[in-house]
Amino acid sequence: MSISGLPKQVTIWEAGPRDGLQNEPGTVPTAVKVELIERLVDAGVSHLETTSFVSPKWVPQMADNAQVMAQIRRRPGIHYQVLVPNMKGFEAAMAAGAEEIGIFTAASESFCRRNTNCSIAESLERLRPVCEAALARGVKVRAFVSCIAGCPFEGEIAPAKVAEVTAALAAMGAYEVALGDTIGVGTPGKVRAAVEACAAQVPLEKIAVHCHDTYGQALANILAALEVGVASIDSSVGGLGGCPYAPGATGNVATDDVVYMLDGLGVETGIDLEKLVQTSWFISDALGRPPASNVARAMKAKCAA
Amino acid sequence: MSISGLPKQVTIWEAGPRDGLQNEPGTVPTAVKVELIERLVDAGVSHLETTSFVSPKWVPQMADNAQVMAQIRRRPGIHYQVLVPNMKGFEAAMAAGAEEIGIFTAASESFCRRNTNCSIAESLERLRPVCEAALARGVKVRAFVSCIAGCPFEGEIAPAKVAEVTAALAAMGAYEVALGDTIGVGTPGKVRAAVEACAAQVPLEKIAVHCHDTYGQALANILAALEVGVASIDSSVGGLGGCPYAPGATGNVATDDVVYMLDGLGVETGIDLEKLVQTSWFISDALGRPPASNVARAMKAKCAA
Repeated sequence: MSISGLPKQVTIWEAGPRDGLQNEPGTVPTAVKVELIERLVDAGVSHLETTSFVSPKWVPQMADNAQVMAQIRRRPGIHYQVLVPNMKGFEAAMAAGAEEIGIFTAASESFCRRNTNCSIAESLERLRPVCEAALARGVKVRAFVSCIAGCPFEGEIAPAKVAEVTAALAAMGAYEVALGDTIGVGTPGKVRAAVEACAAQVPLEKIAVHCHDTYGQALANILAALEVGVASIDSSVGGLGGCPYAPGATGNVATDDVVYMLDGLGVETGIDLEKLVQTSWFISDALGRPPASNVARAMKAKCAA
Repeated sequence: MSISGLPKQVTIWEAGPRDGLQNEPGTVPTAVKVELIERLVDAGVSHLETTSFVSPKWVPQMADNAQVMAQIRRRPGIHYQVLVPNMKGFEAAMAAGAEEIGIFTAASESFCRRNTNCSIAESLERLRPVCEAALARGVKVRAFVSCIAGCPFEGEIAPAKVAEVTAALAAMGAYEVALGDTIGVGTPGKVRAAVEACAAQVPLEKIAVHCHDTYGQALANILAALEVGVASIDSSVGGLGGCPYAPGATGNVATDDVVYMLDGLGVETGIDLEKLVQTSWFISDALGRPPASNVARAMKAKCAA
């Protein structure tokens, strides 16, 4: 049973292989990453963060980026996006054959400075040549804005600030901007306000949401975004991306939980939930802990019963 | 930031001391139960399930019902509800000085038969004299309907069936009926459809929702219910009531997570979130495991950092 006004179809941006794995403490073998990606695509995922071309000094887990890109079976119509922080990363991504990139900045000055060692304006200037080079080569650009519903250093973030950064990224050529509630503090009204502020500056079709479940709010926040027409959602298989040092602490909302909700709402994703949950357990078993996804755990418990 | 159309104020029905604890395997000392209740009321909880007067053969954890009722400090204006299954339970509740009772049936015939060994119609007939006796003594009656969004034996449950049972309970004198998604399979559209079907039969003010987080959907389902005007929500401090044998498996939605969402939405509950989270950790420590509430874990982690 649906709720009137929701999109009929939603794009799931699967973040597990990159955002989900990047903070894992132990090295995840390249073969496991490749199998994860293949299983996700087999389950119907059509848009995914594949790896990142960030310095291995900062993100050692993604040091095998070129190998991952070389070993996956590139299938037609699938968006294999890679994250790049700057021109150096862009060149490496191009050398590895990437056809779509992700770029990132923040809606919080303090967070931007801590994360990228520059102001938001400077980060945008750093990204401008990356966008120009990408567009000149026909490479698609998707952007991420972090801290859209709150910042660990500044607290509240004004929706107008989120909209300003989003508009700048769209103007630079990003075809979609994912609004990230990086620390998961948002509630449905805040996420909705951020989306609405952005939609006053750029077409709604260019806006995605990227919710974290740290405070358990992600699905409610996603529902609020769907209700204002957002039709692109970032999520991570099995909820990959929680802090691995804090058992039970959740990071990215689980794709499993999002797809379960969308299936129930009659919103199409093209994803087979059973295959997705099997993929959740595949990667969780490889990492040696149960998935953070309630759906993945409940479906396994139901099968066992 | 709020969403227009939501209630300004919501009643939280705290289920932890009864629904939350009833399936705990080890005996929880009466003193712990009493302290839990006192801490909840100190945190601003005004409506709570206190204990049940069910046969100790079936629910041994609630065998100290009369002691709990005798030892709590009854404060004016607080609803100390006790669950009763039949006239025998009702008499015992009255002997213990209860001023408000909870009664229960199901929207699924199969579930009703497994849980109470009779049909829905028979269960309603069994509850009728309980309601009559309660109302004759000025004792308030609240009712629970289980399986409103799905049944483990029957699958889908028609909203019309939920509405029929809800109307029957209201006609028998229940001032409020809590619609229980007992196995947590509901998604926002289903919960909304059940609420709307009921609201066509009884005033919306008489409808509460009781969501489980088994599939991670509870907050989204609660948001959907709030959006159609429901202003009474059942929840359990720290998410008490999950299956204690399955780590990470969640049952009742955590009051902590609900109050966090409502605070963010600007909806008043009268509950102090910090005190509530301290209570979550009090009872979780007593039970020897972390709370199932994301908010309780995240707030503690934030304090520690």
